[in-house]
Amino acid sequence: MNDRARRVIADCREIAAMTEEPGRITRRFLTAPVREVHAWLITRMESAGMQVRVDAVGNLRGVWPPSTIANPRLVMGSHIDTVPNAGAFDGVLGVILALHLAELARERNLILPIELIAFSDEEGVRFEVPFLGSRAVAGRFDNALLALKDSDGITLEEAIRAFGLDPAGIQDAKLDENAIAFVEFHIEQGPVLEAENLQVAAVTGIVGQSWLTVKFAGQANHAGTTPMHLRRDALAGAAEWIAAVEAQAQSSDGLVATVGKVAAEPNAGNVVPGYVQVSLDVRHLNDRVRHTAVEEMLRRAEAIALRRNLTVESVYQMDQPAVPMDERLTSFLTDAMEAAGLPAKTMPSGAGHDAMVMATRLPTAMLFLRSPGGISHHPDEKVLEIDVEAALTVGLQFLQRLALEVR
Amino acid sequence: MNDRARRVIADCREIAAMTEEPGRITRRFLTAPVREVHAWLITRMESAGMQVRVDAVGNLRGVWPPSTIANPRLVMGSHIDTVPNAGAFDGVLGVILALHLAELARERNLILPIELIAFSDEEGVRFEVPFLGSRAVAGRFDNALLALKDSDGITLEEAIRAFGLDPAGIQDAKLDENAIAFVEFHIEQGPVLEAENLQVAAVTGIVGQSWLTVKFAGQANHAGTTPMHLRRDALAGAAEWIAAVEAQAQSSDGLVATVGKVAAEPNAGNVVPGYVQVSLDVRHLNDRVRHTAVEEMLRRAEAIALRRNLTVESVYQMDQPAVPMDERLTSFLTDAMEAAGLPAKTMPSGAGHDAMVMATRLPTAMLFLRSPGGISHHPDEKVLEIDVEAALTVGLQFLQRLALEVR
Repeated sequence: MNDRARRVIADCREIAAMTEEPGRITRRFLTAPVREVHAWLITRMESAGMQVRVDAVGNLRGVWPPSTIANPRLVMGSHIDTVPNAGAFDGVLGVILALHLAELARERNLILPIELIAFSDEEGVRFEVPFLGSRAVAGRFDNALLALKDSDGITLEEAIRAFGLDPAGIQDAKLDENAIAFVEFHIEQGPVLEAENLQVAAVTGIVGQSWLTVKFAGQANHAGTTPMHLRRDALAGAAEWIAAVEAQAQSSDGLVATVGKVAAEPNAGNVVPGYVQVSLDVRHLNDRVRHTAVEEMLRRAEAIALRRNLTVESVYQMDQPAVPMDERLTSFLTDAMEAAGLPAKTMPSGAGHDAMVMATRLPTAMLFLRSPGGISHHPDEKVLEIDVEAALTVGLQFLQRLALEVR
Repeated sequence: MNDRARRVIADCREIAAMTEEPGRITRRFLTAPVREVHAWLITRMESAGMQVRVDAVGNLRGVWPPSTIANPRLVMGSHIDTVPNAGAFDGVLGVILALHLAELARERNLILPIELIAFSDEEGVRFEVPFLGSRAVAGRFDNALLALKDSDGITLEEAIRAFGLDPAGIQDAKLDENAIAFVEFHIEQGPVLEAENLQVAAVTGIVGQSWLTVKFAGQANHAGTTPMHLRRDALAGAAEWIAAVEAQAQSSDGLVATVGKVAAEPNAGNVVPGYVQVSLDVRHLNDRVRHTAVEEMLRRAEAIALRRNLTVESVYQMDQPAVPMDERLTSFLTDAMEAAGLPAKTMPSGAGHDAMVMATRLPTAMLFLRSPGGISHHPDEKVLEIDVEAALTVGLQFLQRLALEVR
């Protein structure tokens, strides 16, 4: 496994060179470098004995053994699109790990049909809507999406045709009933495993998310002539609330709450701010916990505003439910981790992944690999060879367990 | 006095019509409407028996009685320039009140030579440097200022020439030794007198000001994948500090502290802020109190940063000392207030005024008139007729007291 782990990383680095921007890794949905990635993967997948096709939204899909497309099979994969100025492992690592696991399965004559999918879009950078690839595979692609335009005014439909594909076939991209499970390998993109000195974790689910805008209004006043007791300072009120939101999240297990965006008006050093708008992002694996937390945060905002003679208004931007992973499939992962001598660590995913969309269609599991420094969406994004080795060991064990299911 | 108070307000409203922008009051240093104001004032000042001239920075100056220019005299005045979209009373009210007081002095045959100055620039809007008028009168005009450029690329020197004046004469604008005192009448531009149900106040001094930029740096992280305990959230740290600054100012008499400006990076709803820059504006009449307060605020920032594993950096933008008004002259004002049956209210000025610059040259006093709603630098800026009446009564009493000095 040691040499294979090294090769997995080298493969990811090779794909990183296929980019829209020389010197930076940027590979948006159906742009030119995607063809290079496809060509590279097709060579490798065919060498691994797979039968390969590109579906109508640009997902590259290979099936092994070729003759078993009609048989029950495991689906594996992740995405090959990236954010602008990305790292080499977000998404791609999951595709390459799946490829190497398929190679291992073949080497070991495992009786487990596999479909490997390199999803064409997860990040949503080009059309500002994520998961275009997995939506089609999960049968959740709304044809209204075809009218989306990128920043050059090109529609999604035109982009698909320009890539040599036929949008009419999108509904055929949907998985058939023989797909019995989906598993995705992905870097954690956070600092948890590193902080706990762990290599991999099975994902319990994708957290639900509440995104809100919260607006505090007071009275803009002269910073010199307005005594403290006659002020209605919207920023001081917002600041008190930001601190309260943080304290509340810190005291609630598994809750994360972030005020990431702030804008004050008139935003001048010598004027007491009359208006402040902030963002609120709250996430938890349990939707009820999340909703209760948001309600409590908004109650605190009201109380602060009342005491300070401000007004406060909040607007929901998004309320996305949590998506649990399949418990049985996840237990196959933790069993495999224990068999490999690793702690059976589980954790929620704080970010969305293709697995989130796939879970709406079939039993789904996900394995996180430690992210050194917690860094992702950045050129410094890394993965350790020993962690890739652990993922390969766990993955092969998982395939062997799955093989029992399809007998 | 009642009819005269009404006329003072009417005069201010007449001058408000002389503007660069129809429908809004905007009258920057040496722009076309300043000529109209000069013409209007010259007619009135000459009717009041004054000998009038425009000095080399555009201050309009009248002396009464004309023959007494070489005698000890009181200087009165304020500014006629405005901020963009201004109110009708900031500055202009002080000029018009001085004009009416000079008329009253003449009516009553008061033995008190008076120089009235309508300062050409206090707001500093056109050349982004304030007090150009009073600097020249106080003998503090640095000729390097002549190289300043306005937003059209016109230098201060060119603006002076274009107005028909000769920059070579600027040093002659300086007051001679016969100027024994300066008094300025001005709207409060704050809410204090209204909140205390008072009409006028003698100003004890212009507060000193500390302006700083304070920068908190942590680590930008994914809002979903970074648990609360592994964050280094620069905005949460800044928020805690903003609340602490406010609490500290609230508990220190006469201190005002304002965080008016805030900028977070990357300023995205789903990213933990890695960097936040805020402004700090601290004012107090006592420079030692102000400096101690700023030091304490910066110590708190350090403590917050240390506890949160952030770094904090502060940069002084301005450290302007307080300017006390002349105690004896101010006592003449409070005596006059009591003689008029008004409480001898005193208060600091939280904003700069021509009196601040003049005080560096000669004994200076200042009288504030209540600002309804605390509103200034806004078209809704107002002054009440009864307060103008009170100011006229106090002013005349003050002139009578001053007359005893010049005998």
